Amino acid sequence: MEIVEVGPRDGLQNEKRVLPTAVKIAYVERAIAAGLRRIEVAAFARPDRVPQMADAAEVLRAAPRPEGVRYTALVLNGRGLDRALALEEAARPDEINYVVVASDEFSRRNQGMSTADSLAAFREVAARAREAGLFVTLTVAAAFGCPFTGPVPVSRVRDLVADAGPVDEICLADTIGVGVPPQVTELAGAVRPVAPGVPLRAHFHNTRNAGYANATAAVASGFGALDASLGGIGGCPFAPAATGNIATEDLAYLLNRSGLATGVDVTSAAGAGAWIGEQLGLAAVPAQLGRAGDFPGDHLLR
Amino acid sequence: MEIVEVGPRDGLQNEKRVLPTAVKIAYVERAIAAGLRRIEVAAFARPDRVPQMADAAEVLRAAPRPEGVRYTALVLNGRGLDRALALEEAARPDEINYVVVASDEFSRRNQGMSTADSLAAFREVAARAREAGLFVTLTVAAAFGCPFTGPVPVSRVRDLVADAGPVDEICLADTIGVGVPPQVTELAGAVRPVAPGVPLRAHFHNTRNAGYANATAAVASGFGALDASLGGIGGCPFAPAATGNIATEDLAYLLNRSGLATGVDVTSAAGAGAWIGEQLGLAAVPAQLGRAGDFPGDHLLR
Repeated sequence: MEIVEVGPRDGLQNEKRVLPTAVKIAYVERAIAAGLRRIEVAAFARPDRVPQMADAAEVLRAAPRPEGVRYTALVLNGRGLDRALALEEAARPDEINYVVVASDEFSRRNQGMSTADSLAAFREVAARAREAGLFVTLTVAAAFGCPFTGPVPVSRVRDLVADAGPVDEICLADTIGVGVPPQVTELAGAVRPVAPGVPLRAHFHNTRNAGYANATAAVASGFGALDASLGGIGGCPFAPAATGNIATEDLAYLLNRSGLATGVDVTSAAGAGAWIGEQLGLAAVPAQLGRAGDFPGDHLLR
Repeated sequence: MEIVEVGPRDGLQNEKRVLPTAVKIAYVERAIAAGLRRIEVAAFARPDRVPQMADAAEVLRAAPRPEGVRYTALVLNGRGLDRALALEEAARPDEINYVVVASDEFSRRNQGMSTADSLAAFREVAARAREAGLFVTLTVAAAFGCPFTGPVPVSRVRDLVADAGPVDEICLADTIGVGVPPQVTELAGAVRPVAPGVPLRAHFHNTRNAGYANATAAVASGFGALDASLGGIGGCPFAPAATGNIATEDLAYLLNRSGLATGVDVTSAAGAGAWIGEQLGLAAVPAQLGRAGDFPGDHLLR
C-alpha cells in the first residue's frame, strides 16, 4: 500500500511557524530515509496568502533526487503550473496535484470561483501538464463535507469526476475531517464507473478521530494510495484546536501490521515526526507511535 | 450499536488524580444524560494497589438508578465478588466484568497466577455470580498482544474462551493498544465457534491511533458492544505518554454518522468528556469531538 507523504506541503502549510528551506529539505530527507517514495513537497500558491510555501521553487531545487523518489507540487491554477514549468528541468516536480473544491461556497471562498469554473480551469492545466510529461492528480476537496454548507452529495463528487477530463489519479479529500467509513466505500463506488481505470487516492484528516478508520475503509475499497504527514502535523483551518492529517508513522504501523507492506519503517518515521514537531515548536505531535513505540511480530500468529 | 461507558472505571483507574466519590457520580450522571445505558462504574480491587477505585461500594450506593441503566463492576477474584454481593440489594452492580489475562507472564505480574489458574478462579466466580443473578462478562485482557512477551497467538485466546465455562458475554480487550483491524476479524472468527451464541464485546485503546479502525472492524465482525470512555481518558500504563480508551464521543460520532445509532448525543457526550478532563486537571482530553464539533446531516446524501 502506497503512502503519499504530504507533511512538507499540507502539513507545513497549516502550521503557524514558517520554516527555513533547509529545515524543509531535512524533513524531506528524513521522509526518504524512513522509506517514503512519493512526497508532496511544495505548493505554488500566492506567497502573500501562503507564506509557508513561498520558497516552493527553492525547495524543489534543493531536494535530493534519489532513484525512485517522486515529488509532487500543489498547483491551484494556470499561474501555478507556469511556475512549475518555468523551473529548470532537473528541479521540476514529477507530479502536480490540482485541487477542485466539491462545494460551490467553499470553492468561491478558497479559489474565488464556482466548482464548475474551477474544473474548467483544471482541464486546461491538466492538459498542459500532461503534455509537459507531468503526472496529474485531481484532488476533490471537501468531498466528504463542506465547512460552510454541510453535507456534500455523493452525486456531486461523481459528476465532478465525470467532467474532469483525462487525469492520472483522482484523490478524494476529507479536507475538514468529517467523513466516516461507509462514506469512503460509497464515494469509491460512485466515482469508479465515471473514471474507469483511474487509480484512486484518499486524503484524510483525523479531526474527529475517524481518519484511520477511513483509511482502513479506503484500503478495503481499492484505493491505491493514502496521504499522510509525518508527525500528523498540519491541523485543520476549520477546527483550529484539532489535529492534522493522519500521521504517516501511525498509518504505516496500522498497514504494515495488517499485512499491507508500505515500505515505511515506523520507528524511523516516528523519529522524523517527533523531529518536525520540535522544529515547529509543538509540545507534542498528534502522531502516537513516537510515544507508544512499535510492537513486534506478526499480528496473525496462530 | 451499544457503547459501554468505561470511563468511570478503566478511565479513572489509569489517571493519577484520585477523584472524590461525588465527582465520580457527577461523571456517571453526565454519561446517562448523554444517552449511555451501560456503565462500568467501579472495580473491586485492593485499595492499596488501586486507590482510584477504593470507594467502589460508595459509588455503587450513590449512583442514580434510572430505568434502563445497567452498572458493571470489575471483579478480579472471589474476594471482589464477595464485596459486590455484600452490598445491599439496591446497591449491587447489575453485571460483573472479570478479567483473565491471555499471556502467562502478564497474568502472573497482574493477577499473581498463570492464565490457567486465573481462568479456573473465573469459572468459580462466574458460577456464583450468575447464581446470584448477575450478568457476567469475561474480559480476555492482552488478547491482541502482551507488553512483556509480544504477540499473543489467536489459538491461545480461542482456547481460553473454550475453557471459560458458562458466561453471558466475552470481551476481547486490546489492553495495550497494539491491535490492527484484521486481528479483530481473525479473533472474532476464532472465538465464535467455541462460544456459540455468546455476544462479543471489544475493548480498544487508541495508543497507536488504530483504536477507531479496530472498532469499525469489530462492528463489521459482529461484535455487539464496544467499550469507550467519555473524553478518551485513561492513558495506558504500558505507554505512559499515550492516550487511553477510545473516546465515547468520537466513537459515537463515527457510529451514528455511519448509520449505526448508538443513542448517544455526541455534543452532550463531548461536554461530559471536556468536563471530566477539567476534573482530572488535564490540559486537554484525547477525545476530539469537543474541539472539532459535530457535523450535521446524513453522510450518505445522494
